[in-house]
Amino acid sequence: MEYRIEKDTMGEVKVPVNKYWGAQTERSRNNFKIGSPASMPLEVVYGFAYLKKAAAFTNCELGVLAIEKRDLIAQVCDEILEGKHDDQFPLVIWQTGSGTQSNMNVNEVIANRAHEIAGNKIGEGEKTIQPNDDVNKSQSSNDTFPTGMHIAAYKKIVETTIPGVSKLRDTLQKKSEEFKTVVKIGRTHLMDATPLTLGQEFSGYVSQLNHGLTALNNTLEHLSELALGGTAVGTGINTPQGYSKRVSEFIAKFTELPFKTAHNKFEALAAHDAIVESHGALKQLAVSLNKIANDIRMMASGPRSGIGEIIIPANEPGSSIMPGKVNPTQCEALTMVCAQVIGNDVAVSVGGTQGHYELNVFKPMMAANILQSAQLIGDACASFDEHCAQGIEPNHEVIKELLNNSLMLVTALNTKIGYYKAAEIANTAHKNGTTLKTEAVNLGYLTAEEFDEWVKPEEMVGSLKK
Amino acid sequence: MEYRIEKDTMGEVKVPVNKYWGAQTERSRNNFKIGSPASMPLEVVYGFAYLKKAAAFTNCELGVLAIEKRDLIAQVCDEILEGKHDDQFPLVIWQTGSGTQSNMNVNEVIANRAHEIAGNKIGEGEKTIQPNDDVNKSQSSNDTFPTGMHIAAYKKIVETTIPGVSKLRDTLQKKSEEFKTVVKIGRTHLMDATPLTLGQEFSGYVSQLNHGLTALNNTLEHLSELALGGTAVGTGINTPQGYSKRVSEFIAKFTELPFKTAHNKFEALAAHDAIVESHGALKQLAVSLNKIANDIRMMASGPRSGIGEIIIPANEPGSSIMPGKVNPTQCEALTMVCAQVIGNDVAVSVGGTQGHYELNVFKPMMAANILQSAQLIGDACASFDEHCAQGIEPNHEVIKELLNNSLMLVTALNTKIGYYKAAEIANTAHKNGTTLKTEAVNLGYLTAEEFDEWVKPEEMVGSLKK
Amino acid sequence: MEYRIEKDTMGEVKVPVNKYWGAQTERSRNNFKIGSPASMPLEVVYGFAYLKKAAAFTNCELGVLAIEKRDLIAQVCDEILEGKHDDQFPLVIWQTGSGTQSNMNVNEVIANRAHEIAGNKIGEGEKTIQPNDDVNKSQSSNDTFPTGMHIAAYKKIVETTIPGVSKLRDTLQKKSEEFKTVVKIGRTHLMDATPLTLGQEFSGYVSQLNHGLTALNNTLEHLSELALGGTAVGTGINTPQGYSKRVSEFIAKFTELPFKTAHNKFEALAAHDAIVESHGALKQLAVSLNKIANDIRMMASGPRSGIGEIIIPANEPGSSIMPGKVNPTQCEALTMVCAQVIGNDVAVSVGGTQGHYELNVFKPMMAANILQSAQLIGDACASFDEHCAQGIEPNHEVIKELLNNSLMLVTALNTKIGYYKAAEIANTAHKNGTTLKTEAVNLGYLTAEEFDEWVKPEEMVGSLKK
Amino acid sequence: MEYRIEKDTMGEVKVPVNKYWGAQTERSRNNFKIGSPASMPLEVVYGFAYLKKAAAFTNCELGVLAIEKRDLIAQVCDEILEGKHDDQFPLVIWQTGSGTQSNMNVNEVIANRAHEIAGNKIGEGEKTIQPNDDVNKSQSSNDTFPTGMHIAAYKKIVETTIPGVSKLRDTLQKKSEEFKTVVKIGRTHLMDATPLTLGQEFSGYVSQLNHGLTALNNTLEHLSELALGGTAVGTGINTPQGYSKRVSEFIAKFTELPFKTAHNKFEALAAHDAIVESHGALKQLAVSLNKIANDIRMMASGPRSGIGEIIIPANEPGSSIMPGKVNPTQCEALTMVCAQVIGNDVAVSVGGTQGHYELNVFKPMMAANILQSAQLIGDACASFDEHCAQGIEPNHEVIKELLNNSLMLVTALNTKIGYYKAAEIANTAHKNGTTLKTEAVNLGYLTAEEFDEWVKPEEMVGSLKK
Repeated sequence: MEYRIEKDTMGEVKVPVNKYWGAQTERSRNNFKIGSPASMPLEVVYGFAYLKKAAAFTNCELGVLAIEKRDLIAQVCDEILEGKHDDQFPLVIWQTGSGTQSNMNVNEVIANRAHEIAGNKIGEGEKTIQPNDDVNKSQSSNDTFPTGMHIAAYKKIVETTIPGVSKLRDTLQKKSEEFKTVVKIGRTHLMDATPLTLGQEFSGYVSQLNHGLTALNNTLEHLSELALGGTAVGTGINTPQGYSKRVSEFIAKFTELPFKTAHNKFEALAAHDAIVESHGALKQLAVSLNKIANDIRMMASGPRSGIGEIIIPANEPGSSIMPGKVNPTQCEALTMVCAQVIGNDVAVSVGGTQGHYELNVFKPMMAANILQSAQLIGDACASFDEHCAQGIEPNHEVIKELLNNSLMLVTALNTKIGYYKAAEIANTAHKNGTTLKTEAVNLGYLTAEEFDEWVKPEEMVGSLKK
Repeated sequence: MEYRIEKDTMGEVKVPVNKYWGAQTERSRNNFKIGSPASMPLEVVYGFAYLKKAAAFTNCELGVLAIEKRDLIAQVCDEILEGKHDDQFPLVIWQTGSGTQSNMNVNEVIANRAHEIAGNKIGEGEKTIQPNDDVNKSQSSNDTFPTGMHIAAYKKIVETTIPGVSKLRDTLQKKSEEFKTVVKIGRTHLMDATPLTLGQEFSGYVSQLNHGLTALNNTLEHLSELALGGTAVGTGINTPQGYSKRVSEFIAKFTELPFKTAHNKFEALAAHDAIVESHGALKQLAVSLNKIANDIRMMASGPRSGIGEIIIPANEPGSSIMPGKVNPTQCEALTMVCAQVIGNDVAVSVGGTQGHYELNVFKPMMAANILQSAQLIGDACASFDEHCAQGIEPNHEVIKELLNNSLMLVTALNTKIGYYKAAEIANTAHKNGTTLKTEAVNLGYLTAEEFDEWVKPEEMVGSLKK
Repeated sequence: MEYRIEKDTMGEVKVPVNKYWGAQTERSRNNFKIGSPASMPLEVVYGFAYLKKAAAFTNCELGVLAIEKRDLIAQVCDEILEGKHDDQFPLVIWQTGSGTQSNMNVNEVIANRAHEIAGNKIGEGEKTIQPNDDVNKSQSSNDTFPTGMHIAAYKKIVETTIPGVSKLRDTLQKKSEEFKTVVKIGRTHLMDATPLTLGQEFSGYVSQLNHGLTALNNTLEHLSELALGGTAVGTGINTPQGYSKRVSEFIAKFTELPFKTAHNKFEALAAHDAIVESHGALKQLAVSLNKIANDIRMMASGPRSGIGEIIIPANEPGSSIMPGKVNPTQCEALTMVCAQVIGNDVAVSVGGTQGHYELNVFKPMMAANILQSAQLIGDACASFDEHCAQGIEPNHEVIKELLNNSLMLVTALNTKIGYYKAAEIANTAHKNGTTLKTEAVNLGYLTAEEFDEWVKPEEMVGSLKK
Repeated sequence: MEYRIEKDTMGEVKVPVNKYWGAQTERSRNNFKIGSPASMPLEVVYGFAYLKKAAAFTNCELGVLAIEKRDLIAQVCDEILEGKHDDQFPLVIWQTGSGTQSNMNVNEVIANRAHEIAGNKIGEGEKTIQPNDDVNKSQSSNDTFPTGMHIAAYKKIVETTIPGVSKLRDTLQKKSEEFKTVVKIGRTHLMDATPLTLGQEFSGYVSQLNHGLTALNNTLEHLSELALGGTAVGTGINTPQGYSKRVSEFIAKFTELPFKTAHNKFEALAAHDAIVESHGALKQLAVSLNKIANDIRMMASGPRSGIGEIIIPANEPGSSIMPGKVNPTQCEALTMVCAQVIGNDVAVSVGGTQGHYELNVFKPMMAANILQSAQLIGDACASFDEHCAQGIEPNHEVIKELLNNSLMLVTALNTKIGYYKAAEIANTAHKNGTTLKTEAVNLGYLTAEEFDEWVKPEEMVGSLKK
């Protein structure tokens, strides 16, 4: 490979000649060979692109950056956002905990690409745009990284997580209505219980997801606060008057999202409770989704020797050895995602506890985890929706048979003959392998006619509106 | 010990003669010898007392319970809430996951005590009040336990957690204002950075706690939803018309808290995402508090060979072997609490994922964890506030010395001479063990006068209002 | 309440007159009102009693403590171990993270009780035995607390956890043999699969617990290492020559357990990886037990509308509203314990990460968690064994019916007619709701005789010894 | 893109013409668009390549596969292991939880590539090798995936984790010896304590890592057990006599690692406690490494206003705004890795709890997490070793100054004048800002000569051998 020489305050470094990055990126590449290369999420890079452009506009407006420089910086940022430079960001998550090296990676790529756009050859002549003095003007890694991280996480949540979850919620809502008259046996403790409708069961899932979406939305206010303007330690040193507010307005404009400057910049650098908060809501969704997916696979179990109350789409051959087997694979993918998100939540929490003084240095790890969790939940919900939920159908025959066998229909008699006599009927039928009606009459507690009058599963399911 | 005979649908059981509980409580005592006896939190029992009283009032109002029975039930509930029967609840957390046995424990105690109040002797004659048919009327364990759990958790959060955290927040706010002119060195990556004021540092802590309190408050809406009225599986079987809404109004009245009936009872029995949600906010507070307590003990470290920028109260002799040692013990208690809460959050999440069909059977474990976390955070904040935060004072001498030594004051020169020259000054001073001013002048980048003009720590701390 | 005056290096403190504890215990009581009083586990106190006695014997043997003092100290330690002073240890977990105050609590109780035994009245005259100079001789909180914690955890694991798990393992092993000819349907992905025997299923549980016990045993070596002799920072300052080795020999003798002096005292104070390691094995057992308990409750589900392949003991009425309901309550208690232990593992890990320099100050929290987890697993296994596992019986009728219905018996044909034709048979039978045999013959892939010859469930279950 | 038609038991699928994979891989690609494409770790694919080759050899030896087929299969497996087909495995982690689709991906690639090697064109003519009947002969996804996962995890641990950790341990051991006479102040509770040597401090780190390596090695026995031969549910249906043992011998031979057949195949499919166990040890290492990295960055903090007792290598410019700043970046990368591993441990535990009946369907998620954790710990240790640990040097001047200031040297007087008088000296010196010696003499407890005789830091550091 061919190299050119780049310099930073520590001296010279050899950089691949066909890359825009500079000395500090290259140092980081060499010093942090941990895990897969380029693991720093591109979403964070794009977050940086938005903020670098916004900073350039703000600096220019406030009189500390020439308009030509502003436009060069903005042009490269736009190119980055179009995905034209994805291969220019080779750094890993496991670098400095402030993400300084990824900030410099962006600064260096912008500076060198701008040099090129301005008609020069990279590595030749004075840089048209300086990475530190121009691209990074009025900024520090310490406020840019959390800003980029908030932009990335917020966008991922509103563009992937919420739509994915909402899609699934809508389908479950639709199913809930479709199934509202399908009376089936209820199960508590995994044991037979009083009946309800399949639609009621699904309405619980809808309610869980609605609460989860509300919880997630509640966290967006905190996540919309941007650190930018705090610079090195939160004081905003080396920023012009009015910078913080203005730069966040530009970011809001460029992203079309309601970002605003953080009320307190010291928190915004030293703690990432906003990430902890939003990830907590993602974890809550994971908890809910795990319950839903588990229920669905248990209800669909069989086809002959399981519960078999619902039928889910058969998407793939399920076994390499058992011919004709079909499995609830979407439930499996989704529950694996849930387990991952619950684990990620701990990683985020541990990182969140460890801010020291003016800076939390677990930034890249926290960013990577929230982006993964938000992506996985959104994608897995969309996948589950399309390949499973939409196709769920009741197996009416099985549902009817399991309902009518149930001894728990006896509960309807509590208000007629009391809990103790009702229990005696159920216990006797269970022991004798007979029906409730048979034993109710045998025990002399009621007549066959009374039984038929009082024990009507379809009247035991109440109403959602009570 | 003397015994009397109690019965349930499974037969006879011997119960200690001086106890109000009945057969089902005694079975549970014998079948679940797991951990310490009576570990089920009393707060849950009190939650039950509120709801049993409310159910009795509602049942009476709706015409299904005699007023005499209502009053007897209510009288015992009031006695329980006064703490008169704390020794009547011997069951453990690690029982049936629906908490049925604790529900029956309450039912049995109320029934037997009511029998006594009505002028009878326990164990003699027909029970004046039946545990299942009267005390438990229009109820199931499946809706009472989550109701009791929500009442208990909600009360704990508003009565202990929020006041404790708020008290600490107020003190930190006061300190932030007191210290607003104390300029000190900033630290990022644990390394010297540009200056800020001690008040600014504390303002970050205040902001963290404010965000945490907001997040916790956001969860209360979900937690205020009560399952009562769902009975066995969420359908509300065996409840009179209008019951759900009315019973929650009575609970709101008796507790003086804004409880309301759950919008969806199927969720309210089968999932405990509201507990997951509120515990998530407690975990966020733990993350914040860990950061704050860590900072304070690092800043107070010494007295001779640490950082020593602040002085915290000396509350106890710190060592059994090192005479005169004083330690940041409140920080230690608080951070241990934080670690516990982060662990509890995982237990709650795992329990939350495992609802099956119509019932989540991790209820007592989830209840115990949220009550412990809410209590510990509230108590630890109050303790930390009283015994540490209120007494924090700056060590002005140390603060001044550490500030003036710092090489990072060079950052003020970035906008004057550029990042690269500024770096050269800092690096040279570091290498030579000299001052920035010396090397700035030696290198010829500025005059001594310019240095004094441009490098003023007190002007580097910006303003919170920028 | 009446008080007497006690003193420490900070001055005078009023202490309840009927208590043996002194000034430092009282200070801690007042300064740490966090959670329930006296939450510090008594097991830790007993661990201290062993080590204080061992230290007295060692100090005496090495010539730094008078024999009369040794015997007084030893006598009080024995009283503590007999449970005579359980109400003398009022401190909480959430105190100083070194546990200094609990060490002093023990020192103070021993000193005052010894004073009394020696014929004096507490609070009068020069103390016969000094808490710091005599009881704590050659010790520091920093090495005593981890020593007490290791003794307590080791004892709990060998006396409660391992016996409890082993008992359950033995029962499952016995059941595995009993059920070795009970051929049943297998299930993968919760879906019907090829058959196996119920005994084989149970053999998997046995193997899990055996591996878990091995893993737990593997950790005991590390846990047997005692910090005692390290004193303040690990150097063993103020200990006589030979002390470390000798004191651990005395502890081994008094506890009858293979304790030994830690190879490296600096680790033993500053890190508690031994606790992390042992708790990791407890967590592994929790993971295994959760799987086992889940399987058993799913197989026992019903009685009419679930899987119903096994019958478990009916221990309690299962519902306060549904008469005659019986639930898998032991499975629920056990899985709640598993969730708690998984959460506790995170608390222990977080605490373990946070040692600073020469001391980890999360000791009491780590101790409390490992003791709780070890207790709960041991107790819950014993309870599950006695009240559930021992009574498990196959429901032969259901097992047979579910087996014979299964379409996955077709797998036996793979080696005869190939995977693709076998799949076609299964799919057709599934679609038509017919049997494999019918469709196999209809499709012309084999004769009815060949089907009967080749598809024999009892020959599909292989052998464990292959 | 051009496509060809591939078939499976569900029908026809269009597959990119230049890819070896077949119908089932393509279905999975379309049905699981969750997260980044091709996220299934290549290490798992390589594990499959080893086992497919071993199965072919075993099948041939046992007479159920032709030698020509064996050789074709083996040749493609070798090509896969050489990395020639890395782009042929496009599937994600978040697929079916048995990993069936990745098993089929490997089967299909082998079959089609073999067809090509045999002189045919993919998609034309009868397949020379059938994916299910030949490549997958005597196998199921249910035993191959856990086998591939164990091979992958075992290799990663012995090839990356253990070497990385060992390298760091060796360096710390070397430093421990180098620094064995560097007497410095100890710190407990972050507060000044009695002295020790820097070498002793480092010896604690070495001991932690040695214990961690032992713990990790203890888990390898369980991890070396292979599920292969269990096929669909553990019974080994459709495997020839002697298969299990022989196939594991071939795997051991090909990998040169001590793999063996699992003692119990039912566990090996239905539970992944071996993964839980090994990951538990990785988590323990994370806990240890976090402590070590934290200590090092605190000791290196400064350069002017921190602790500054050691000097670590300056690898990169540390700030984009603060010129001349150097940060403990390797500590940060390592502690971020630790947080991730602690989170991953929870994901693995949650997955581990959820086996149902004969199969755990969280396999790909568990595999991905253990591989990530093992890789990150190994890499981060190697990086930390090379770029930080090897370059650590004491800052003798600072160490000396901080040592001599310390008031905790007073501890040496305990055995001379008692704890209480020693405390008085320390407290007085602290209050007056004077030296211990001054106050010791002023208070009349000893002479200046005695002080010099008794208080010698270098004699307070004891010996590791005591």
